[in-house]
Amino acid sequence: MFEAHFQTFEEPESGVALTARLSAFREELARRKLTGFVIPRADQQQNEYVPPSEERLAWLTGFTGSAGMAVVLTQEAAVFVDGRYTLQAAKQVDHKAWSIEPLVDPPPENWLARHLIAGDRLGFDPWLHTSAAAERLAAACAKAGAELVAVDGNPLDSIWTERPPPPLAPAAVHGTQFSGEAEAEKLGRIRSEITKLGVDALVLSDSHAVAWTFNIRGADVSHTPLPLSYALVPKDGRPTIFIDHRKLSNSVRDHLEATADVEQPDALAPKLTELARGGASIALDSATAADALSRLIVAAGGKPVRGNDPVSLLKAVKNPTEIEGTRRAHRRDAVALTRFLAWIDREAPSGKLTEIDAVEALETFRRQTGALKDVSFPTIAGTGPNGAIVHYRVTRKSNRRISPGDLLLIDSGAQYEDGTTDVTRTIAIGEPSAEMRDRFTRVLRGHIAIARALFPDGTTGAQLDTLARQFLWQAGIDFEHGTGHGVGSYLSVHEGPARISKLGTTPLKRGMILSNEPGYYKTDAYGIRIENLELVVGTDIAGAEKPVNTFETLTLAPIDGRLINLNMLSGDELDWVNDYHARVRHEVRPHLDEATRVWLDAATAPLSL
Amino acid sequence: MFEAHFQTFEEPESGVALTARLSAFREELARRKLTGFVIPRADQQQNEYVPPSEERLAWLTGFTGSAGMAVVLTQEAAVFVDGRYTLQAAKQVDHKAWSIEPLVDPPPENWLARHLIAGDRLGFDPWLHTSAAAERLAAACAKAGAELVAVDGNPLDSIWTERPPPPLAPAAVHGTQFSGEAEAEKLGRIRSEITKLGVDALVLSDSHAVAWTFNIRGADVSHTPLPLSYALVPKDGRPTIFIDHRKLSNSVRDHLEATADVEQPDALAPKLTELARGGASIALDSATAADALSRLIVAAGGKPVRGNDPVSLLKAVKNPTEIEGTRRAHRRDAVALTRFLAWIDREAPSGKLTEIDAVEALETFRRQTGALKDVSFPTIAGTGPNGAIVHYRVTRKSNRRISPGDLLLIDSGAQYEDGTTDVTRTIAIGEPSAEMRDRFTRVLRGHIAIARALFPDGTTGAQLDTLARQFLWQAGIDFEHGTGHGVGSYLSVHEGPARISKLGTTPLKRGMILSNEPGYYKTDAYGIRIENLELVVGTDIAGAEKPVNTFETLTLAPIDGRLINLNMLSGDELDWVNDYHARVRHEVRPHLDEATRVWLDAATAPLSL
Repeated sequence: MFEAHFQTFEEPESGVALTARLSAFREELARRKLTGFVIPRADQQQNEYVPPSEERLAWLTGFTGSAGMAVVLTQEAAVFVDGRYTLQAAKQVDHKAWSIEPLVDPPPENWLARHLIAGDRLGFDPWLHTSAAAERLAAACAKAGAELVAVDGNPLDSIWTERPPPPLAPAAVHGTQFSGEAEAEKLGRIRSEITKLGVDALVLSDSHAVAWTFNIRGADVSHTPLPLSYALVPKDGRPTIFIDHRKLSNSVRDHLEATADVEQPDALAPKLTELARGGASIALDSATAADALSRLIVAAGGKPVRGNDPVSLLKAVKNPTEIEGTRRAHRRDAVALTRFLAWIDREAPSGKLTEIDAVEALETFRRQTGALKDVSFPTIAGTGPNGAIVHYRVTRKSNRRISPGDLLLIDSGAQYEDGTTDVTRTIAIGEPSAEMRDRFTRVLRGHIAIARALFPDGTTGAQLDTLARQFLWQAGIDFEHGTGHGVGSYLSVHEGPARISKLGTTPLKRGMILSNEPGYYKTDAYGIRIENLELVVGTDIAGAEKPVNTFETLTLAPIDGRLINLNMLSGDELDWVNDYHARVRHEVRPHLDEATRVWLDAATAPLSL
Repeated sequence: MFEAHFQTFEEPESGVALTARLSAFREELARRKLTGFVIPRADQQQNEYVPPSEERLAWLTGFTGSAGMAVVLTQEAAVFVDGRYTLQAAKQVDHKAWSIEPLVDPPPENWLARHLIAGDRLGFDPWLHTSAAAERLAAACAKAGAELVAVDGNPLDSIWTERPPPPLAPAAVHGTQFSGEAEAEKLGRIRSEITKLGVDALVLSDSHAVAWTFNIRGADVSHTPLPLSYALVPKDGRPTIFIDHRKLSNSVRDHLEATADVEQPDALAPKLTELARGGASIALDSATAADALSRLIVAAGGKPVRGNDPVSLLKAVKNPTEIEGTRRAHRRDAVALTRFLAWIDREAPSGKLTEIDAVEALETFRRQTGALKDVSFPTIAGTGPNGAIVHYRVTRKSNRRISPGDLLLIDSGAQYEDGTTDVTRTIAIGEPSAEMRDRFTRVLRGHIAIARALFPDGTTGAQLDTLARQFLWQAGIDFEHGTGHGVGSYLSVHEGPARISKLGTTPLKRGMILSNEPGYYKTDAYGIRIENLELVVGTDIAGAEKPVNTFETLTLAPIDGRLINLNMLSGDELDWVNDYHARVRHEVRPHLDEATRVWLDAATAPLSL
């Protein structure tokens, strides 16, 4: 009855034949007079989701996590992963060939400095590393008296038989009914930023920035409607877009050519060289631009200027059309979510459902809206102890039965043309324990503190983060992730530069959309997270001396009242819950069948002590 | 009857004869083939209070603020000051000779890049700038095609007739009954840090670090009991202290020589050169080490390693003896404060007192403890509109009568041998307005939120700062300073590295002392600040998953209940006020005369709606 089209439950490929790949790779390195090589997980644009043709790390090592790196030396070989992936890497990687090392603390550069010897030649592909990353590698080599060598052509690609072709999903126009601003206007604003930077041109090395600027979307990678592409925007004159022409229908091509020249991806390097030859200074996004781009510019006599891509901030501030779109997307998503929550409440107490059943049902309800383009990320459905694994993703092997006494944590989202959603609910299956209710209520109070926060213009996400944690801290507990991330408009569900986290140094601006998702995770027992998306809006306060902002909650779905210890809520907090539930009922009820209405009325009935 | 010994109320020297000084200085620059020069406010050690012999900026320009810089070019000359000092600089500086420019945003380097021309030779004294500051100047010069020239011997000193001699206040031993840890033990811990840094030696360029390490104190600068000095600590072997021998009695000298070699200050350069000659890597504190030290090391073939002085963090964590000392100092200070508050309450409503009267009375009550060594900074006593000037310092000219209807803000502190205090109280003179009570109560709620905060090990001051602001933000108001700074143990009242501020990236550790001082300032009307010192302490919480910290309030003085709108407090907040007042009464009452006891009983009587 239910099925998932946008997510698989298969275990990733295991270590078969991978050892043979490593030997072949070492032979290739020897042919190229290299004593080692660095293989990052990244593609040329540091994308969160990379196409199969860029899965070099997985092909060589077997490790399929979303972050990592490998280093192959003549004798040693190591896979570097962060804490989330230590167990997974141990299962996927052949221990005879590879050691597993930390990715973050200490960084791989420490391992390199210890294992390289004087005279070593460590290769790297400058298209797969940012300049900052390349500089860290170079420093590690220098410490050991070794040399870092930028290769021309990745040696791994030479031995990768049956490498998948790059994706060629058709691009589509993202019309102004969704984008709210024509390309020409966006380019005008980008040119002002280029002038402020005092450079001659800006490279858009982030496909999200290209998609936003030129109002196009695509399907080259999972879950984010991106066409992989580059653009070059000079301070005057027409920009150039670099995109595989096979992705372009005549109408999309016409759309693009109205404001830009359209070139094949391999025209980027010569075009940049030509521009740089006159000594031009060219701005590059330090987060996504490949070191190879800097090298091209320098080699041609130009000046690369690294910094934050100005499009990132422009894109983060949504315009009225995008805001109306996201409100509509959230109302639509709320109907699917409510149907799902009612279904779970009816079916789960029998103890017959599994995590995969939940994922399939939720996606099916979303598909039944008729507007679902993709899920915005693989749904996290963790029941009982699986809920405590923050980045859990169910497979046929890990799949767990949802049992009475469990907490079920469901974190999911949708891509609709008018907006991107991301929501987490934690559901009590049967009777929750007093401890679960205590923890849930502390998480909820933190969530409410963010949702109700009033803060002056200029406040950063770092300044708000503690509001979400304070009630957990009072019990000597915490959660080990940020409180919230930015969200795109039919783009990435994880969008910079703003976030609510102690690292969130970007001031929050009206029109930004951020998640609000405090949690609590008890290892081997249960996980709790409550996540809504929030829109930054202005508000009027009598006597205010500066502009004040607050959040408008976009997500509409009941919060499980059985998990709230009402004795722990202040009057204001209880009012917030009841007001929120009244709003959910008002917005969602008209679009439901009778049975789900009955469920929703009960789930959103006013709570009182 | 009352008088101030540690603070003057005189207006600083005005602009007489200063124009002549500028001409003489320009002639000296011409003799040295320089087309310009940079004059910072700093001394060789970037001290907060500098001795008169280092007041070059004031001598040349007339500007006496605690932060600033001047640049003299052939045609232009500018004084750079921050927002606090714009008005003061305008009064003190001769406008025909100098323009007044911003010190912070944009930075003086922007002005330099605009006013320097190709071929210019801009001089600077590398003893008066950190290396980071010198690099910023060099970058600005490079932009303009000018050259930054490090001078040997400051050209201003050549023309400074009647320059005061450097201070020679006697140094004293700070016995282990106060310091709690012998020099040898401290040196052992410092050597572990040197090993961790992987360097051959550490320069202590901060006199506070030298004083802490070798358990000495002095009186070379105002308000901080410092002997100006340097030290060099090799990873093995005896350290060397560089201090003018005229400051040392035989017994202090014996004390120092038990663990260190004692040299004259001018021995530092040759000693560092000698050490560096072997290629040694030498750690320098990036916040206080003069660029000249880096240059010396490089010139001799050594390697300067810039970073945070490890002594800064060691010094910030107080040991049990220092903690017992500070508690004692605060109890002593509380008696003086309470006598002062009772006196103000009795005398001020007549309308006859002035701000200077208040400063003199408070210092006198503190002197009457018999233990006062100095005030820890010039008392800020601002009544009415003067209270809204955050860094206000009363002079005979600005002195204002304390009138009914005013709020009086008093921020003051004491240096006792067993501890340093810093406390602010805001007092209603006559009947406060409803707005004043609203604002005061919001500030108080923020103060209480910090005082009661529970937070896991590793939490930084940046993570706590918002707790102090949240209730002000709810009214669209804020305060434009940090919530709190670290405090020394009979050392600087402003001590790094920890602070409660959005810039406070140092994790708070048990044993640190920080101020908790939210405020609100209504320009031209009134100022409010409530400041206590807080000690970071551990606490036990059932079910906690990580070590939890909280604050123990050290400062003991009534908070003016007439300014509290009880309707705005939660039950927990009201309990905090009443518990705090009960503690103040319990600790302070036994040491008071009968009349003050009666006042204290009323001032600390339980509040209820």
